[in-house]
Amino acid sequence: MDVIPVSLGGRSYEVAIGGGLLNRAASHAEPFLRKTTVPVVADTNAWAAHGAKLTQSVKDGGHDVAVYEVASGEASKSWQELARLIDWLLAQGVERGDHVIAMGGGVVGDLCGFACAILKRGCGFVQVPTTLLAQVDSSVGGKTAINTAAGKNLVGAFHQPALVLADLDTLSTLPLRELRAGYAEVLKYGVLGDRSFFDWLADNGPAVVERETDALQHAIATSVRCKAQIVAEDERETRDMRALLNLGHTFGHALEAETGFSDRLLHGESVALGMVLAARYSARLGLMSPADASRVCDAVAAIGLPHEISRLGLDCDGAVLVHHMRQDKKMDGGTLPFILLRGIGEAFVSKDVDLADIALFLDDELDGP
Amino acid sequence: MDVIPVSLGGRSYEVAIGGGLLNRAASHAEPFLRKTTVPVVADTNAWAAHGAKLTQSVKDGGHDVAVYEVASGEASKSWQELARLIDWLLAQGVERGDHVIAMGGGVVGDLCGFACAILKRGCGFVQVPTTLLAQVDSSVGGKTAINTAAGKNLVGAFHQPALVLADLDTLSTLPLRELRAGYAEVLKYGVLGDRSFFDWLADNGPAVVERETDALQHAIATSVRCKAQIVAEDERETRDMRALLNLGHTFGHALEAETGFSDRLLHGESVALGMVLAARYSARLGLMSPADASRVCDAVAAIGLPHEISRLGLDCDGAVLVHHMRQDKKMDGGTLPFILLRGIGEAFVSKDVDLADIALFLDDELDGP
Repeated sequence: MDVIPVSLGGRSYEVAIGGGLLNRAASHAEPFLRKTTVPVVADTNAWAAHGAKLTQSVKDGGHDVAVYEVASGEASKSWQELARLIDWLLAQGVERGDHVIAMGGGVVGDLCGFACAILKRGCGFVQVPTTLLAQVDSSVGGKTAINTAAGKNLVGAFHQPALVLADLDTLSTLPLRELRAGYAEVLKYGVLGDRSFFDWLADNGPAVVERETDALQHAIATSVRCKAQIVAEDERETRDMRALLNLGHTFGHALEAETGFSDRLLHGESVALGMVLAARYSARLGLMSPADASRVCDAVAAIGLPHEISRLGLDCDGAVLVHHMRQDKKMDGGTLPFILLRGIGEAFVSKDVDLADIALFLDDELDGP
Repeated sequence: MDVIPVSLGGRSYEVAIGGGLLNRAASHAEPFLRKTTVPVVADTNAWAAHGAKLTQSVKDGGHDVAVYEVASGEASKSWQELARLIDWLLAQGVERGDHVIAMGGGVVGDLCGFACAILKRGCGFVQVPTTLLAQVDSSVGGKTAINTAAGKNLVGAFHQPALVLADLDTLSTLPLRELRAGYAEVLKYGVLGDRSFFDWLADNGPAVVERETDALQHAIATSVRCKAQIVAEDERETRDMRALLNLGHTFGHALEAETGFSDRLLHGESVALGMVLAARYSARLGLMSPADASRVCDAVAAIGLPHEISRLGLDCDGAVLVHHMRQDKKMDGGTLPFILLRGIGEAFVSKDVDLADIALFLDDELDGP
């Protein structure tokens, strides 16, 4: 087991990563369980697969669970679901000093985390991420949100969990496509700031996706350590540090928008494509060597992730994708910060990217290699 | 003009108090207006009375206003109105670095402040409070919220404004009943921590309610100075300091709940009654002299505020009022902190109040003096 601290003064917490954690969930979370009944907000699929284990552990700790199930999928991150969840938490008598357990992927973490951020102006929560993407990304760092008609994650809060329990065993039931999508975020940490981790992934990526325990453990722990360090330095993304985590996300967001935030393109898949585009655009600007850009593309392709937007079957041009980018909540006074690369492990924030040039670049990419 | 700083590190801001401030609103707020069009969220009545002045000032400063009107009354602090307002702010293209102007009483400040707290995980706002209650209480300190079916202010955030402009001239059109209700919060600052201010109010309270400029200015500035100091020491009410501001609010909340949060009893009126009850209960416990408790009651009565719950025509007993108290979001592990008094200017937090004894006390009070 790895235990990685996220150092944020009074909001500090630990991320525990390992096998069999759910069997001991209640003892890990004991400092945060002060009432007889523990409210659990869980993804329906995650609850079906792992709920019994969590329930048993909580019972062994002398508590009961009251569970609220959330349907899988982005549609649950809505005003309606938020209000319904908050009504349930209020009916459970959740007080400011209490902690709610959020079990599932990014959707449950974002929805439940946001509900806890605003319930009585803030109560606590414990994240139990059950997807690779949530374990290495969304469960750590306190970004919570719901979607509105105008776009994804446009309403939310920074609200740190009190504890994160990432149990490797929960990944055994994860569909391969979702595991690969989560791997894109793992690879991102290597590409943005850790060339030796990138090299390790170039060799061991397939073992991670084949769920070999040691490889998974190392990949997740290294990812979380990287994210924890960035979040500790720039909790609210007010400096450029945390923005580096958006590598691949601006291009990716446009692709997700164009495919309707649907199963056609999972978030992690869009990040994989976005990283390839960021690398190629950096090479096009002469910032990064074409060889390094190719290595990024190869690392994505090796794992079976999409790496050419020309193969997505999109019926749009670059200008349409740039239009989607302009809706990004990071737009600031008419400019959009882009994460570009000077090399593998050397990401930086560029604030003078010409969106018209991005549209031309995307036209070329849409035409194919 | 008084300018009172609220010292909160990176979230520090100033509260400007004086006559004619709206005529110079844009120059005061200039550092926070970076775009051509300034989004203004305004109470319908406040906008009708003072919108032209604000618009002219903003135009003089080289900007335009886009206004979103909010109906007066607690009903506007709903999920539906929140979502609608956020859709409007998104349509206006409000970005994280932008500031929205909130003009009106506590309802607009709470609703707009909360919307700004969660829009793109937080944008800025400037408070332009136009009621006495909002000027001395709700516009300062960053508490924002909406109501749910289960109760008032159960969903919200701590989100500090960037600036507060309290223009005395806006009080000239305020109905007398609302002015008196706001005065209850002014008196609260004297009762909870400043005996000399209480003494000053005993002499000058009538002049404040008659809107004599010097008296109003002193009353508002002293109140804001007191609140600013408390908020600076305990922003998120994690210590007992900020809780002192709840003097009269726990009793008051029960009375508001019993009267359906309606015009039958305004919030400030419930606080006035609550202060009298807190003083009498403190005297009953032998904590405070009966003479001091009488002075609190006299100060409330002198201004024409309700001071006897036996005259409210309530059809309930003390147990019903205590039941309402149990829904308070400050309930913590089965106990409810009460603000009691050791004397005028000497409030403290009591965490071992016996709710059954409170019910008996309220039975006596409901029977009349």
